Amino acid sequence: MIYSMATDKASQSIRTLEWIGGIDGFLRLLDQTRLPTEILYRDCRSVEEIWEAIRSLQVRGAPAIGLAAAYGVVLASANAPAATLADEVNKACGHLATARPTAVNLAWALQRMRLVAQQAALLAGDAQAMRWALLTEALAIHEEDQRMCRSIGEVGAGLIRDGIGVLTHCNAGALATSDYGTALAAIFVAAEQGRNFTVVVGETRPLLQGARLTAWELQQRGIDTVLICDSMAAQVMKEGRVQLVITGADRIAANGDTANKIGTYGVALLAQAHGIPFYVAAPSSTFDLSLATGGAIPIEQRDPREITHGFGKPTAPEGIAVYNPAFDVTPARLIHGIITEKGLIQPVNVTTIRKVVTGQ
Amino acid sequence: MIYSMATDKASQSIRTLEWIGGIDGFLRLLDQTRLPTEILYRDCRSVEEIWEAIRSLQVRGAPAIGLAAAYGVVLASANAPAATLADEVNKACGHLATARPTAVNLAWALQRMRLVAQQAALLAGDAQAMRWALLTEALAIHEEDQRMCRSIGEVGAGLIRDGIGVLTHCNAGALATSDYGTALAAIFVAAEQGRNFTVVVGETRPLLQGARLTAWELQQRGIDTVLICDSMAAQVMKEGRVQLVITGADRIAANGDTANKIGTYGVALLAQAHGIPFYVAAPSSTFDLSLATGGAIPIEQRDPREITHGFGKPTAPEGIAVYNPAFDVTPARLIHGIITEKGLIQPVNVTTIRKVVTGQ
Repeated sequence: MIYSMATDKASQSIRTLEWIGGIDGFLRLLDQTRLPTEILYRDCRSVEEIWEAIRSLQVRGAPAIGLAAAYGVVLASANAPAATLADEVNKACGHLATARPTAVNLAWALQRMRLVAQQAALLAGDAQAMRWALLTEALAIHEEDQRMCRSIGEVGAGLIRDGIGVLTHCNAGALATSDYGTALAAIFVAAEQGRNFTVVVGETRPLLQGARLTAWELQQRGIDTVLICDSMAAQVMKEGRVQLVITGADRIAANGDTANKIGTYGVALLAQAHGIPFYVAAPSSTFDLSLATGGAIPIEQRDPREITHGFGKPTAPEGIAVYNPAFDVTPARLIHGIITEKGLIQPVNVTTIRKVVTGQ
Repeated sequence: MIYSMATDKASQSIRTLEWIGGIDGFLRLLDQTRLPTEILYRDCRSVEEIWEAIRSLQVRGAPAIGLAAAYGVVLASANAPAATLADEVNKACGHLATARPTAVNLAWALQRMRLVAQQAALLAGDAQAMRWALLTEALAIHEEDQRMCRSIGEVGAGLIRDGIGVLTHCNAGALATSDYGTALAAIFVAAEQGRNFTVVVGETRPLLQGARLTAWELQQRGIDTVLICDSMAAQVMKEGRVQLVITGADRIAANGDTANKIGTYGVALLAQAHGIPFYVAAPSSTFDLSLATGGAIPIEQRDPREITHGFGKPTAPEGIAVYNPAFDVTPARLIHGIITEKGLIQPVNVTTIRKVVTGQ
């Protein structure tokens, strides 16, 4: 732990994660489980600390966990001699991939790190040089993520007209990425462009990422925000308070079926029922073109106590059975468009996705 | 306060409310804000205590608050001389009606008490006799409610086939009525009839009546129960875990539009999207035939802190705007049938409702 402060002293420049130092450095990350009441940074100096930070949602959001895992690989290489460094990296990648199963960005970032280790083993043969190659790759992923988020914001901002209500679910903001976010990037750019609108934020049970993180990010940037319980989404749509829905994504199959935080599928159905367009915002690293449809996306099941004891005291009878899937899959037919750093995918189908994501 | 005990010692015979004594008696009610971790009874000896118990949701559920208010009128008559007793009753009715605006059972029960006071003033002229007339009417409402709940259970049980999953939202159980419940009455009777099925309970943010009350009632009766967050309803439907939805109601307009706990309208839309029948269970006292449609039903707005501080600690940034409607209105077109003590209303429209509810 480095330092902690009251959140009202936080500036807009809060960093979700930051690599401190050179190849012997460490990853400093904002502990998102403490927000919005406390800004607490944690320094991770081992693969295990990174694994635990991802598993416990101190760092969360598909792009951010991919990035944290990439830095975890750098930490894994710290004491390895050149001869076994690629093996150490492989082992670390295998372990880090188990921290959370649904977001494909984790596997995607680890695969990039694995390839760099293999190339470096062939070319360099020197442990220091290999470690620099790994750190360089992690920093490149970091920098690419920032650029991707900004591009997503610029592509998506055009959807946000003056005076509308935009509903979002969970957190696809700066806290879910290295900076700026995906769904929230569109909102931030639209606000920078001078448009006035209201963001309706679903609190996102069980862990309240909407209430704790998204509402906080929007408030920090002075954007008009209204917090609701997830069960109020249909009613605010019926009352005409929402003209657009944008969420993030944890994995998108080749046909556009999209895994995202539990509750997203329901919001998409409710949007359809009210004639409100539903958009997903995600970098191209969130696409998993190896999966034909969303049916093959693994859905993480989490601890029942997130529901029964989520606020420090029991809110359900002892011993009750609980079902706690962390994600759901929204079928492509409910998605009006997918906002990527490479452009807007619309209509959402195998052909338009392949064309935008792979350029072919 | 009379006594408190751990809920694991509770029997199935917990009473939601009970009048203790004769015309100088008092209302003992189970404080539902303490469940499921504590069974705490409160004794109300004044109109103001009843008003506060209704307002703060110590007693809640449309039939139960109507009944509590009727007993409140008995308490209001305690020290009034015969000449002003009817005026005292009128004043108390006016005040009690303001405790919560949406459930029509409150106004319905108060109207019955008001009429009895007027009749008694004309016929009796003696304060003691008038007070006995009021208590007799409150006890009659109580006894009728118990019979209505049992009848609703018998009408509704036939919908629950062996092996299905039944989703419910909020609490329409024994705790929402004098005994047995409305939506849960159907479930309890089906279980008594030997059928095996699973009840999926939405936790019902912000105040968690599903998690705290419904899950507890079902567990007490040994019925297979799975607790979910409200945002998981769409996913459990998609996974084929739900074949029927039954909820209670707080007010039903002449055309069948139904006000119920916030989130019900969304569940009804999701049920429609998955081809799952959606039923409402309510006694005839929940119908407000003076309203043509649900658009005229007043929707209670509650304290933002229920959302931002609902679990004893802040879960949203200080100063964030919140929208907290306590109810929504499900349009009649989404309701497959309304289960009443007088029979099943199906299809749901002005004609079938008038026929079943008024017998004409």
